[in-house]
Amino acid sequence: MLDRDLLRPPHPLLLEPVVRRALEEDLGRAGDITSELVVPSDRRATALLVARKPGTIAGLIVAETAFHLVDPSLVFRFERQDGEDANAGVGLATVEGPARSILSAERVALNFVGHLSGIATATAKLVDAVAGTTTRIVCTRKTTPGLRLLEKYAVRCGGGFNHRFGLDDAALIKDNHIVAASGIAHAVTRVRAGLGHMAKIEVEVDSLEQLQEALQLGVDTILLDNMSTADLRRAVELAKGRAILEASGNVTLDTVRAIAETGVDYISSGAITHSAPCLDVALDF
Amino acid sequence: MLDRDLLRPPHPLLLEPVVRRALEEDLGRAGDITSELVVPSDRRATALLVARKPGTIAGLIVAETAFHLVDPSLVFRFERQDGEDANAGVGLATVEGPARSILSAERVALNFVGHLSGIATATAKLVDAVAGTTTRIVCTRKTTPGLRLLEKYAVRCGGGFNHRFGLDDAALIKDNHIVAASGIAHAVTRVRAGLGHMAKIEVEVDSLEQLQEALQLGVDTILLDNMSTADLRRAVELAKGRAILEASGNVTLDTVRAIAETGVDYISSGAITHSAPCLDVALDF
Amino acid sequence: MLDRDLLRPPHPLLLEPVVRRALEEDLGRAGDITSELVVPSDRRATALLVARKPGTIAGLIVAETAFHLVDPSLVFRFERQDGEDANAGVGLATVEGPARSILSAERVALNFVGHLSGIATATAKLVDAVAGTTTRIVCTRKTTPGLRLLEKYAVRCGGGFNHRFGLDDAALIKDNHIVAASGIAHAVTRVRAGLGHMAKIEVEVDSLEQLQEALQLGVDTILLDNMSTADLRRAVELAKGRAILEASGNVTLDTVRAIAETGVDYISSGAITHSAPCLDVALDF
Amino acid sequence: MLDRDLLRPPHPLLLEPVVRRALEEDLGRAGDITSELVVPSDRRATALLVARKPGTIAGLIVAETAFHLVDPSLVFRFERQDGEDANAGVGLATVEGPARSILSAERVALNFVGHLSGIATATAKLVDAVAGTTTRIVCTRKTTPGLRLLEKYAVRCGGGFNHRFGLDDAALIKDNHIVAASGIAHAVTRVRAGLGHMAKIEVEVDSLEQLQEALQLGVDTILLDNMSTADLRRAVELAKGRAILEASGNVTLDTVRAIAETGVDYISSGAITHSAPCLDVALDF
Amino acid sequence: MLDRDLLRPPHPLLLEPVVRRALEEDLGRAGDITSELVVPSDRRATALLVARKPGTIAGLIVAETAFHLVDPSLVFRFERQDGEDANAGVGLATVEGPARSILSAERVALNFVGHLSGIATATAKLVDAVAGTTTRIVCTRKTTPGLRLLEKYAVRCGGGFNHRFGLDDAALIKDNHIVAASGIAHAVTRVRAGLGHMAKIEVEVDSLEQLQEALQLGVDTILLDNMSTADLRRAVELAKGRAILEASGNVTLDTVRAIAETGVDYISSGAITHSAPCLDVALDF
Amino acid sequence: MLDRDLLRPPHPLLLEPVVRRALEEDLGRAGDITSELVVPSDRRATALLVARKPGTIAGLIVAETAFHLVDPSLVFRFERQDGEDANAGVGLATVEGPARSILSAERVALNFVGHLSGIATATAKLVDAVAGTTTRIVCTRKTTPGLRLLEKYAVRCGGGFNHRFGLDDAALIKDNHIVAASGIAHAVTRVRAGLGHMAKIEVEVDSLEQLQEALQLGVDTILLDNMSTADLRRAVELAKGRAILEASGNVTLDTVRAIAETGVDYISSGAITHSAPCLDVALDF
Repeated sequence: MLDRDLLRPPHPLLLEPVVRRALEEDLGRAGDITSELVVPSDRRATALLVARKPGTIAGLIVAETAFHLVDPSLVFRFERQDGEDANAGVGLATVEGPARSILSAERVALNFVGHLSGIATATAKLVDAVAGTTTRIVCTRKTTPGLRLLEKYAVRCGGGFNHRFGLDDAALIKDNHIVAASGIAHAVTRVRAGLGHMAKIEVEVDSLEQLQEALQLGVDTILLDNMSTADLRRAVELAKGRAILEASGNVTLDTVRAIAETGVDYISSGAITHSAPCLDVALDF
Repeated sequence: MLDRDLLRPPHPLLLEPVVRRALEEDLGRAGDITSELVVPSDRRATALLVARKPGTIAGLIVAETAFHLVDPSLVFRFERQDGEDANAGVGLATVEGPARSILSAERVALNFVGHLSGIATATAKLVDAVAGTTTRIVCTRKTTPGLRLLEKYAVRCGGGFNHRFGLDDAALIKDNHIVAASGIAHAVTRVRAGLGHMAKIEVEVDSLEQLQEALQLGVDTILLDNMSTADLRRAVELAKGRAILEASGNVTLDTVRAIAETGVDYISSGAITHSAPCLDVALDF
Repeated sequence: MLDRDLLRPPHPLLLEPVVRRALEEDLGRAGDITSELVVPSDRRATALLVARKPGTIAGLIVAETAFHLVDPSLVFRFERQDGEDANAGVGLATVEGPARSILSAERVALNFVGHLSGIATATAKLVDAVAGTTTRIVCTRKTTPGLRLLEKYAVRCGGGFNHRFGLDDAALIKDNHIVAASGIAHAVTRVRAGLGHMAKIEVEVDSLEQLQEALQLGVDTILLDNMSTADLRRAVELAKGRAILEASGNVTLDTVRAIAETGVDYISSGAITHSAPCLDVALDF
Repeated sequence: MLDRDLLRPPHPLLLEPVVRRALEEDLGRAGDITSELVVPSDRRATALLVARKPGTIAGLIVAETAFHLVDPSLVFRFERQDGEDANAGVGLATVEGPARSILSAERVALNFVGHLSGIATATAKLVDAVAGTTTRIVCTRKTTPGLRLLEKYAVRCGGGFNHRFGLDDAALIKDNHIVAASGIAHAVTRVRAGLGHMAKIEVEVDSLEQLQEALQLGVDTILLDNMSTADLRRAVELAKGRAILEASGNVTLDTVRAIAETGVDYISSGAITHSAPCLDVALDF
Repeated sequence: MLDRDLLRPPHPLLLEPVVRRALEEDLGRAGDITSELVVPSDRRATALLVARKPGTIAGLIVAETAFHLVDPSLVFRFERQDGEDANAGVGLATVEGPARSILSAERVALNFVGHLSGIATATAKLVDAVAGTTTRIVCTRKTTPGLRLLEKYAVRCGGGFNHRFGLDDAALIKDNHIVAASGIAHAVTRVRAGLGHMAKIEVEVDSLEQLQEALQLGVDTILLDNMSTADLRRAVELAKGRAILEASGNVTLDTVRAIAETGVDYISSGAITHSAPCLDVALDF
Repeated sequence: MLDRDLLRPPHPLLLEPVVRRALEEDLGRAGDITSELVVPSDRRATALLVARKPGTIAGLIVAETAFHLVDPSLVFRFERQDGEDANAGVGLATVEGPARSILSAERVALNFVGHLSGIATATAKLVDAVAGTTTRIVCTRKTTPGLRLLEKYAVRCGGGFNHRFGLDDAALIKDNHIVAASGIAHAVTRVRAGLGHMAKIEVEVDSLEQLQEALQLGVDTILLDNMSTADLRRAVELAKGRAILEASGNVTLDTVRAIAETGVDYISSGAITHSAPCLDVALDF
């Protein structure tokens, strides 16, 4: 059961520019020429945002922002909240006000809710699949360019956790870094010599030998990339809690439970952000 | 066989701000702290951008822009071109220069190429499925917020065509507009009274009766929404070429050929932009 | 009689950035140093925006935006509406509130109203001159850089119609394109092969021979550039309604009626946007 | 004879954003769809920017910036310089390079050169009309929103001088300020009490009585608004060089010489920026 | 006693972008993760902005803007005003509303108030030191990049005056200009030939010989750089009020009164903006 | 001895917008009117950036960016590097090229170098004072609004380390958070429940009792605020290396060594960023 206090919806100062850009992209230079010509300016309407397929909802607060940016007089009422599950046909929110304004904001609002709910839904499936274990599902930096803030939020709505937000908020030493630095030990030493004390260090390892080396170096987190569940289980035994263990690679609905049952702390998935199909949502008048 | 002269890659003036924003999103405030600490500043590298799965490629020009924005001294060589198909394992491009710079731009470049190639691949599958008919596949406004320019380009790379770029470059009178305007005839009259002569008018119809009305009004294009193939075939007969016919709804790889064989001119799909899974691409050093 | 529902005033999301930029340009770094030093902060005033010369009004909604951006507490009341005619001395709007704020926004508000009303007035004169014919007056892309959205709106306020908003919302094949493509037929074929079905195609022709070729190609619109009225009349006969005909070149108040009486559908004028003198407006306290 | 060293062309850091915005406005979301489809990508061209009517040229450096922003490979050669006069038919500059790029930048480049040369030409006519006197022609803040930097430059190209660039770089106490401050003396005292020593103070007066008061207060400049030439002459006598005198109101080609001959130091004109018709310029391939 | 009507607080249109940028800098991509997780969303609080050390206050209006941008529902009450002195422990303002919002804006608000009050305090000390003389203290362009608007305001809050806001609002001919122009006379002639009549001219001189030359040229202001008080006194005698005299160089609390007593009109100090220590302010809940 | 490979100069993509904004602030609307009028356009110059006082240098790369943004043809040569110490009179860099361009960029370049070198110098003094201990000096979020990226870099140039870059890259639970959350334990639990595994958690404590509680909760870092050196020493003993210990409060050149000798890992100072006086630097021609 998701604790809604942990969702941390994006602050309006960070959210509004993203939504504004999307609206400008759709309005173009001339605006919504169809609605402005066809719909009388005093026509009012009430529309219901509905899920056409079942899923976990994310992005209602983004839709609210879109409707309010297009027309501050629109009244947006939440029928569901971000992070909740919804069956097909369920009403998620109502919008009421000038019909023109609702129509002008409709597509952008739906694009956000559909995209983000798709991510929340894909995340929730993985989270459900590992229910009962202590393993957490986390996302990656494989997000859609320009939407990282919102996609990380959608992952939280689906019950997942966030990895780094970017290249600058923690050190992640990958295989190519290790090669360039001539070994894990040297790489970790360099990072420790330059990094502040509030940034964590993670090292990606491909083998149990590398794992041993990383453990001895005392790094915060170790990324076990593309290991068999047998090796993962062995890694958990070797680590004895001395580092956080994160597994990645070949994470699907079919494999995720077995990976979780090895005892790793985190399983990271790029697919929940880069390949989740849109959730089908619509606006009914 | 795709005519590469018709791809119309985004103009640099329009492309660069999108890529710059994605890089800033990833670099954050402090930049790529791992690479800058771990990789010696004079270390050079050559990396190969490869497709891990087969697909139709789109976004190499975006990757090139990302690498050059991070470091103008990086040399980017195209091994394949946007719009070409690639098998798994095929090299798409090489990047050569300071290792730090390659690593700092890597994720953003891959995110773009993976996302856009996913769209191109999904489009190409529909295009291939209707091969031999005269029907064209088109996209919609159901795009990822902020990336419409690039996603429309990816559709072209997949052999598809573009519908409207936004609310302002053509009139599309949908069911809600028709209700608000009290009928198709009134809606079309209003649009004609206000619109310039260089913007086309499309009307969405749900039935053959509405189709007849739209045909009599002489609109440019008629959107046949969610009709059976039988009705679509009847619509083609009724239209007799007096309007462009576009079919939408329930368009999948399984259904698209049958829809095309009804003789409609265009089939529009939202899924090719909003639900195409990422194509798996990677950067090998 | 202008139908006010067809004016389509710019959406606030598109309008505000233009007005904000103009205010920032005038306020500079230090703001309105004179008013802030000279006018007591609690001094209130009521000012009347008046037309000093007769004309067709456009831009009152822009003035309202300017005053509200400078000070949301200012009360702006429309005495006239955009698109209406006003005699010299007529009050167009009143502004009430802190005198400092009114003075700080005054020049920017007047610059917009004067400039746009100048365009509306010039347009209205051409529109009046062709009254009784079926010919419509349209603008071009010869607009003041940065103000296209507003100038297109001013043209509508004057009873005119809009041509393309930019290079991307319709294809216009001009003489230089035809030369570069080795002929009209080839150019049209290329455009049809690449363009989506919702963008119209216009071809510029200089002679009746070219007109014939364009008609056979079935393009949407044909631009008859710099033709004599005799040739225009002949063009109308040849076209028989198969394409929209637009005349351009040497369009003045003296010539426009004769051009319209040839039966062309549209007459385009660059002068209404690039050379219309400002309408004299002022703010009386 | 204009001293070209005094023109002060806008610094590239200030100029480029204005031109970039104009190009983005014209390219829209999809770019120059006609040229990209019709013109082969390897077609090169040479085009000549010509004046179709005689005038004083301004904005060639803006055109150069536009062509280079669209395509850095374009070669732009000045045949004339900003600030020079040109007869009809004279070549102003040549552009050489990819035909597509030239076509895509053409309209924006011409819009700038036409607009700014129109201002330079209108200014030069006033300047010529007062030749032989010591009076200088200056512009006002009645400029086109967003283009003040460039229009002030165009005025210099026409031999004129610039008044304030905005509300913040000098104090100009107008009639409404005087009313709000309860008199000239009080207004000047307030300004002096708060303003730094590097900002000049100008007072607008409507009568010789007000002039006397302003002279006694020792302000830098006095704006004589809408005075008869008789009064202007008397004002010059009264001032005896104790303040710079600027005349405004009813400044036309017919009246400007008589105003200058009264001996005022400056004559300001709003019309040279807000009502100058575009100079007819074109690009010949 | 500071006349509060002369403070000219920055206009909201100019102030808000600066504060917004600072908030975005602190919120980063993910926002205030601590407060959002730790503080219940319905927890309200009242906080008191206090001075921990005595000083002259500046920036309360900036703090108000910061709190309102983070959360428009926060109620901000001024207990003191910008420009007033405060003892240690004095409450400057109260903020009331959601505790999360107060915490998220706290650091940015304090950074502004501390920095600007530091400048106001440093300025006020110099102003107090010259009390009773007619000399005014002015700032320079040696300000913190990006904060000039606010730092100039802080100087006014401290009782100082502002010099130029930038390179464009007055001419200041320095030693390097004089060398490049081959002499003061030539430099002044060039400036007069090109500059508008509303921009003042200041010349920097190092010796009494140069002063004589500048006086003969009739420039508005003369900057006496690094002169002894003996030379400054002599300069005042030589000038006889024909130009405004500004002294600079070696201005400290120890020297400033002696400099003022030479009779110079202005003393400029870079240290009040570039080296003023932060005033210690805090937010008590 | 500072390891220059650990400095991590800001990436150009992040640095350039900050410098561009500073230049636009100084150039204003009209640019450098003095240099453009006084200095012949073909005059070239070589200038030497020198330290007038001894200090640790930071910001030469910012100066380089400023000169290149103003004029890409300027040649900038480093005589010293960021992070190095310089005596008074030492040349830090030379700039060569058009004299106008050097003069136009001069003040912005100096403002950056002076400000950042002031921070580096203040940092280096604290670093030197704790030499021989294992304690590191770190900065805080008490930075100048808009310049955090650069000030954090200056701290590194002075041999210090960076704390959080903002509210989003680590959790820092302060006294007010603890009150709002009803205790340390609850606060830490909440953070752990919602935060990703790559963000560290720090808790601020005021007493040894709170320290004990924080240690038992196993947080990463503990901020010991305003404790006596006796208490700090006791804290180090209690912690036994189970958490990183950071001391803050009353950190001056006089106290810092004693604090370091208690054995704390980090000492944080706000003064090094918010109150460091500018280092006196100048540009000699």
